[in-house]
Amino acid sequence: MNCKVGINGFGTIGKRIADAVSLQNDMEIVGVSKTSPNYESKLALDRGYPLYCAIPDRISEFRDKGMDVEGDLNDLIDESDIIVDCTPGGVGAKNSELYKKAGVKAIYQGGEDHQVADFSFNSLVNYEEAYGRDQTRVVSCNTTALCRTLYPIKKQYGINKVRATMIRRGGDPKQDNRGPINAIKPKMKVPSHHGPDVMTVIPDIEIDTTAVKVPTTIMHFHSINIELKNKNTKPEDIIKTLEETPRVTLVTEEHGIESTAQIIELARDANRPRNDVWEIPVWKESIVIKNNELYYFQAVHQESDVVPENIDAIRAMTKLEKNPTKSIQKTDKNLQLNPMI
Amino acid sequence: MNCKVGINGFGTIGKRIADAVSLQNDMEIVGVSKTSPNYESKLALDRGYPLYCAIPDRISEFRDKGMDVEGDLNDLIDESDIIVDCTPGGVGAKNSELYKKAGVKAIYQGGEDHQVADFSFNSLVNYEEAYGRDQTRVVSCNTTALCRTLYPIKKQYGINKVRATMIRRGGDPKQDNRGPINAIKPKMKVPSHHGPDVMTVIPDIEIDTTAVKVPTTIMHFHSINIELKNKNTKPEDIIKTLEETPRVTLVTEEHGIESTAQIIELARDANRPRNDVWEIPVWKESIVIKNNELYYFQAVHQESDVVPENIDAIRAMTKLEKNPTKSIQKTDKNLQLNPMI
Repeated sequence: MNCKVGINGFGTIGKRIADAVSLQNDMEIVGVSKTSPNYESKLALDRGYPLYCAIPDRISEFRDKGMDVEGDLNDLIDESDIIVDCTPGGVGAKNSELYKKAGVKAIYQGGEDHQVADFSFNSLVNYEEAYGRDQTRVVSCNTTALCRTLYPIKKQYGINKVRATMIRRGGDPKQDNRGPINAIKPKMKVPSHHGPDVMTVIPDIEIDTTAVKVPTTIMHFHSINIELKNKNTKPEDIIKTLEETPRVTLVTEEHGIESTAQIIELARDANRPRNDVWEIPVWKESIVIKNNELYYFQAVHQESDVVPENIDAIRAMTKLEKNPTKSIQKTDKNLQLNPMI
Repeated sequence: MNCKVGINGFGTIGKRIADAVSLQNDMEIVGVSKTSPNYESKLALDRGYPLYCAIPDRISEFRDKGMDVEGDLNDLIDESDIIVDCTPGGVGAKNSELYKKAGVKAIYQGGEDHQVADFSFNSLVNYEEAYGRDQTRVVSCNTTALCRTLYPIKKQYGINKVRATMIRRGGDPKQDNRGPINAIKPKMKVPSHHGPDVMTVIPDIEIDTTAVKVPTTIMHFHSINIELKNKNTKPEDIIKTLEETPRVTLVTEEHGIESTAQIIELARDANRPRNDVWEIPVWKESIVIKNNELYYFQAVHQESDVVPENIDAIRAMTKLEKNPTKSIQKTDKNLQLNPMI
């Protein structure tokens, strides 16, 4: 019998996870919740996802707009083996009591603190620890991206210290109320929270990060510097390691991939849903080692890179699959996560 | 008698240097050159700068548009004690033979290689070495900015290594043919040329930089990490040092200065010509020391931060002033480089 998944919050992340769950053959969507009857609520109904109202006294608003609502959030919880909480940052923590009281398993997103679940997840790093867990937090898009490339490099070559600059998109394509429109806006917390957040997944790593926001909507970007333990490491070694790492893809200027714009164009050309880039593109030319320090550039599709991680987390927590590699392969195959170039 | 300055190239940098020269009382503009009769040529005439045609056989084009032209580039050179070459990157190197043959002193901009003059200039670092020189290169806006803050920190606390990420504006406000418009575009040379360029001014510094271009027009931005030699350094020490450094200004989030946009607004409110920010703004809150590593953020007004350096270079090369501090103070007083906040 398929695992029954409820999605609380059908926005940027929630709608993607719902679609990804629907593509797997060992889980199914039993419902999604929205707080208001907007275009995304309509999409849920169009896709055949049972719609629930996250706020009980707003059910009539949905019905007034001719949208069928199955019930409220408590009803959705009753239907579900596991809830994927995709509500805005901070709301998940408030919901956690509800989930615990109802005895339903719950996945939170990276907008919540580590403490929401006392366990932060990345498929490559700690899938086995998530096996059978009741509460798990899938880390943010930036942290997921950092974990994806840092973990295999740390494992194979050792890391003394990571220093990285996060150059963040100002807002997502759908967000018409974000900025900056013509400025570079630093995150004044120095070092930024991204380093400590990586350490919730990979505890024994030394990492400091800084962050700025810039006027782009399509991807984040990381400029990464790593002091390696293994002093004989060559760029070719790193390339080979990253080529062998799932959900990491190497791109090259030789193919005309000179910025985040061309990466998104690859996803569009590949007919990826919503031009999603689930994997982390790393520029081959940027992989340089100088005085035992490794440099590389990677891009991060902020709307989608955490989607496969959420699928794996469902599979581990509900004991559908014990083996991380098998889950990763299954998720990616069902998503049709094929090389874009 | 005033020093006679000719400006070859009256574009982004040239027009600013011409105006800045005009504000000094020990030098004067004897002419500026343009290759075509555009709005900047008209501006030169409006300001009373004798106009020369950089390409002899185009003189008629200027006259056809009713613009008085005094002669060609050779005539401008004849009138000048020193030429400030503000032509596009690479053109200065071609012009250098002309200047040498004519026996006129010449200043080049940062778009040229160090070899164009075999001497790269920053007022704070090596004014005295420029004294009486015939050829000098004023380094680029980014390199100037790095030198301005790194040099005093190195002098007072010692630097083991600098790692910095340059987040560069896509184009200047007047450049409607630049990009990216919605992407982050890495400079694929890793480490970037900025580190080695700093070393043309401060040879005994270890520095690696990476660079990306982003969709903004108003300023560059640097995220800087420094391993300090002096292990007892406190953020307050760095703040004091930078407060005492000419052409560096501290800004704070407390005043609502949260991005490059507000820095430009300060310059507009201060009635700075063309909203120029000649000094390097450093965010006070970003000055953090963690495990003996200093972090800070600085912004760079790419169109104007090198202007005072060019004035000082003129003064040193033509022996108008031997003392660097006196030249810096004179330049800044005449520019009315007063605190913006």
